[in-house]
Amino acid sequence: MKRMKIFAPGTVANLGCGFDVMGLTLDGVGDVLEVGVEPDAEGLSVRNESGVSLPADLEANVVTPALRALLAAYARPVRVEVAILRKIVPGSGIGSSAASSAAAVYGVNELLGRPFSPERLVEFAMQGEALLGGVAHADNVGPALLGGVVLIRGYEPFDIVRLPVPDNFFYAVVHPDIVVSTKEARAVLPREIPLTQAVRQWGNVGGLVAGFALRDVSLIGRSMHDAVVEPYRKGFIPDYDQLKDSVLAQGALAMNIAGSGPSVFALASDYAAAERIVAVMKRHFADRGIGSRTYAGRVSNAGARVVES
Amino acid sequence: MKRMKIFAPGTVANLGCGFDVMGLTLDGVGDVLEVGVEPDAEGLSVRNESGVSLPADLEANVVTPALRALLAAYARPVRVEVAILRKIVPGSGIGSSAASSAAAVYGVNELLGRPFSPERLVEFAMQGEALLGGVAHADNVGPALLGGVVLIRGYEPFDIVRLPVPDNFFYAVVHPDIVVSTKEARAVLPREIPLTQAVRQWGNVGGLVAGFALRDVSLIGRSMHDAVVEPYRKGFIPDYDQLKDSVLAQGALAMNIAGSGPSVFALASDYAAAERIVAVMKRHFADRGIGSRTYAGRVSNAGARVVES
Repeated sequence: MKRMKIFAPGTVANLGCGFDVMGLTLDGVGDVLEVGVEPDAEGLSVRNESGVSLPADLEANVVTPALRALLAAYARPVRVEVAILRKIVPGSGIGSSAASSAAAVYGVNELLGRPFSPERLVEFAMQGEALLGGVAHADNVGPALLGGVVLIRGYEPFDIVRLPVPDNFFYAVVHPDIVVSTKEARAVLPREIPLTQAVRQWGNVGGLVAGFALRDVSLIGRSMHDAVVEPYRKGFIPDYDQLKDSVLAQGALAMNIAGSGPSVFALASDYAAAERIVAVMKRHFADRGIGSRTYAGRVSNAGARVVES
Repeated sequence: MKRMKIFAPGTVANLGCGFDVMGLTLDGVGDVLEVGVEPDAEGLSVRNESGVSLPADLEANVVTPALRALLAAYARPVRVEVAILRKIVPGSGIGSSAASSAAAVYGVNELLGRPFSPERLVEFAMQGEALLGGVAHADNVGPALLGGVVLIRGYEPFDIVRLPVPDNFFYAVVHPDIVVSTKEARAVLPREIPLTQAVRQWGNVGGLVAGFALRDVSLIGRSMHDAVVEPYRKGFIPDYDQLKDSVLAQGALAMNIAGSGPSVFALASDYAAAERIVAVMKRHFADRGIGSRTYAGRVSNAGARVVES
């Protein structure tokens, strides 16, 4: 059996105004999987060796539907063995499940001699997301596979656009010890929104995409507002407005909820600011008796890749 | 009195999904104004020598509020004389009023030695639009002044982003002899829209901006859908769906309503297709006993400019 170790990065979905259509790649945090394939054999096994608690049942693991989608499209018998070696804590809001699905399909595709395009791999990995949220979405698996910032223009047909991120561009993420299920986070959203609010939102989406395309860090910061979803979801995060004020006071370009929360992310144009921001974030939750994990680093242009060992 | 002749181009606002936030510049069609300034004098006059019927009352002409906004910001006495020499037919849906306002403020700024930035000029020219539609919007005056494709990220504060258009990129526009007032076109719109529809729309806005930024003509075409406004406004245009089928069959990348209508525009990647498209457009309305004017040409990177005479 041929084997490879694969790294896939953590990601932040939504990016404020880009609710359900955008995602960004984080450097320095992600999952590592060992993937093995044996052609002309049958079977699928997924072992968890990460030390992080995951469902023991194969069918409940996100990598299973992602790999099954790939194998169905490949349409030739292959045995696949996956060992999850290192894992972002689930529920972190930085694309834990997406990182595993992305690494799994990326590894199998490499070992089979790349029968599928990167965009096709995103469609396979999406099936892992469907297992958790009920909907196959690509705003985490997209950047986890392709790197940079990703826009999902539409799903029917599936149309994904990758843009590079500026070189000097940093993130700060805090994952507080609060549980917010994706289902709960969906349930608070309104079914209808005012047209005027929608127009404001798509003006900002346009600005955000233009900011990345033109590598204009200030425009990215000015555009990263969310008039639609943030007002409903910020209630899950204690004293969110106060946190935002403190984070912006440290020089953040923007702050918003990461994915469906409870994590919060901020962007900055230098690493020192990102470090100050995570310190402020940690203190905010500590002051309220809530523990947290923080992450700071560079926003990355690199998606899933082989780990040279 | 120093004088200059200024050309400002026709423009198409909205571009499908970019309702109220985007606009595009047309080559080969626009207004020509002769603008004169006399420092240390008072007064404003606007003469219509275009042969096109316009309100005789100075206060009812769109260039008046635009120029008054500029002069208020300049805060020194200047006499301004404007003669409108050539004019796009009003109500055409290709930014007739915007072209006049843009040319007027551009000319005065040139003659005064450029005290204002191009973005500031957009804010002045917007005041002309407010006279007609009740709201100061920039999706026609923006491209009429700056050229290319323009995104208005937001109005508070005013934030406008210009992107270049691809070199080989053509438009076809038809202006049927139907009257649809901007007020009427606003009145049919819903006040609230489904969140799922809004998400689809901002995915397309992101795709459209990315398409222009990456000069990806196919992505521009794939993104130029409008799930929100077109279904309500297409009722003003006889057999709109049939027209769209015929236009797309001629190789158009996309077709949509120009501004608030009744004009319709299409985009194409070669001029021959744009010519076939205007022929099909003209026939569509002629078959229904409706006269029309058509325009075909290059999408332009050049906004308002001095006419070398």
